[in-house]
Amino acid sequence: MESEYGVTSYVAGDPCYGSCDTFPENDSELLGVDLVFHIGHAISLPRLGSRTIFVDVEDDVPFDEVVDKSGEMLRDIRKIGLITISQHLHMLAAVSKLYEQMGFQVSIGEGKGHLKDGQVFGCEFYPAFNIRDAVDAFVFLGQSPFHAVGVAISTGKPTFMLDPYRSVVEDMTALCQEMMKKRYLALALAKEAHRFGMIVGLREGQVSVRRIRELKRGFEAKGRSVQMITMRDITNDHLQQFRGIDAFIQSACPRISVDGYTFDRPVLSVPEAQALLSMIDGNDPGEFLSKSHWL
Amino acid sequence: MESEYGVTSYVAGDPCYGSCDTFPENDSELLGVDLVFHIGHAISLPRLGSRTIFVDVEDDVPFDEVVDKSGEMLRDIRKIGLITISQHLHMLAAVSKLYEQMGFQVSIGEGKGHLKDGQVFGCEFYPAFNIRDAVDAFVFLGQSPFHAVGVAISTGKPTFMLDPYRSVVEDMTALCQEMMKKRYLALALAKEAHRFGMIVGLREGQVSVRRIRELKRGFEAKGRSVQMITMRDITNDHLQQFRGIDAFIQSACPRISVDGYTFDRPVLSVPEAQALLSMIDGNDPGEFLSKSHWL
Repeated sequence: MESEYGVTSYVAGDPCYGSCDTFPENDSELLGVDLVFHIGHAISLPRLGSRTIFVDVEDDVPFDEVVDKSGEMLRDIRKIGLITISQHLHMLAAVSKLYEQMGFQVSIGEGKGHLKDGQVFGCEFYPAFNIRDAVDAFVFLGQSPFHAVGVAISTGKPTFMLDPYRSVVEDMTALCQEMMKKRYLALALAKEAHRFGMIVGLREGQVSVRRIRELKRGFEAKGRSVQMITMRDITNDHLQQFRGIDAFIQSACPRISVDGYTFDRPVLSVPEAQALLSMIDGNDPGEFLSKSHWL
Repeated sequence: MESEYGVTSYVAGDPCYGSCDTFPENDSELLGVDLVFHIGHAISLPRLGSRTIFVDVEDDVPFDEVVDKSGEMLRDIRKIGLITISQHLHMLAAVSKLYEQMGFQVSIGEGKGHLKDGQVFGCEFYPAFNIRDAVDAFVFLGQSPFHAVGVAISTGKPTFMLDPYRSVVEDMTALCQEMMKKRYLALALAKEAHRFGMIVGLREGQVSVRRIRELKRGFEAKGRSVQMITMRDITNDHLQQFRGIDAFIQSACPRISVDGYTFDRPVLSVPEAQALLSMIDGNDPGEFLSKSHWL
């Protein structure tokens, strides 16, 4: 960039966890950065904030072979919902046509908020959730059990992941059940907790003070004590210093909780904390992750 | 705080690496935080930025026993410089008196910038460096080889660490030599590098764009290519993605480099990068860390 156009460019070297984790506006100001290209996490908006431009990255891996292979596993299914992540969105139309040729009835859910048609994030599932009653199963395009299991948990429908690289079809049911068991266990443990740590995440698109403050009032009303915490990287290591805390609730990213196998105390996401409040009142937690959005 | 005074308080849960690593002003604004207490890293100023107040933490561990023990190790020394970190600063006068009673001539260097009299940071050593010619050795109070070896490297003087908890006196010479060998090796490896990654740290008091841009011009003038990088947490893991880079230079914190045993490519601090420029011109690197300040 500098040699060709006379423009200084920085590569942002820290891990980036999604379109919520944009390069901080304040850091751009400190560095004198005018424009930020956020590459690979496409959303329905071309820009976010004052200087971030989302740049699509399309993966040209073909799905023909793995779609063909999936016919056997989907033999008892008639109506499928197609769903994917940003890098395969441009393949949805062609894959839909393939399935129709194979005799399936195919639906692609409408986008909503930051999501395009047929797209999911790790925390937001509108295009799957909103058509769940119209389909027998979801077919997820891509090598991402992380996203595919999110669709399965959110919609409660059989979900099959089509991995185009290994040409493998995976039924997400077992992983979904394993993860949910751990979430029920976390809730059961947190039900006995008296001292809660409530964590506001500090990544730019993950700061959600309002949610945590609502929950704080809710738990205090049930006689629990609450310590507010800020944290950029919510890891088991960073939680060790809070020795007097029985359970944590965090509003940064629900997947830190739902996928958080390494925590040695319960760390609940926002919908899980809401379910816990209901459990403390003696109710069943309900289908607490059967939601279109986990925040 | 909330129950007693009606004031909401957050505990900042991420690691904090020093008085340079204050809670970001911008995060305070997002959270609506009016006041930040930075506890345990005392500096010569009571406040920093618009809302950070430094709160001293004094450790009351006694030094009498370990001072007494040190007499044997210091038997050939007459003039000592006393130096410590914030939590033991209040012990300097008493320890000075003890050494004088034992027949030593004691100096305590004047504070400068953010440093109080007799205080060092991990990167700044004025109260030691400025009296190095007037003493035979330094005596460092505290259980911190990190700070004690910094004094040894910066001043080039024999430095003895008095650990009051284990009541042990440690000569820092061996650690100093081991670390310097690794720094010479890093410089020798970096001398062969063609493609440099230059990292600006993003922690609030560590953003130093000017230094890195000066070095960028310097290395480009020697025919090296430079990729600018931003990073909040400079770890070997985070550097792995930069596959085309032969060596890194970072202006965030010199100790990331000087103590950075885990990097598999050279990662140079600012004074080391300046020494490297001199080496590329065919000069000896000189005593590149014999400086009062490593930034």
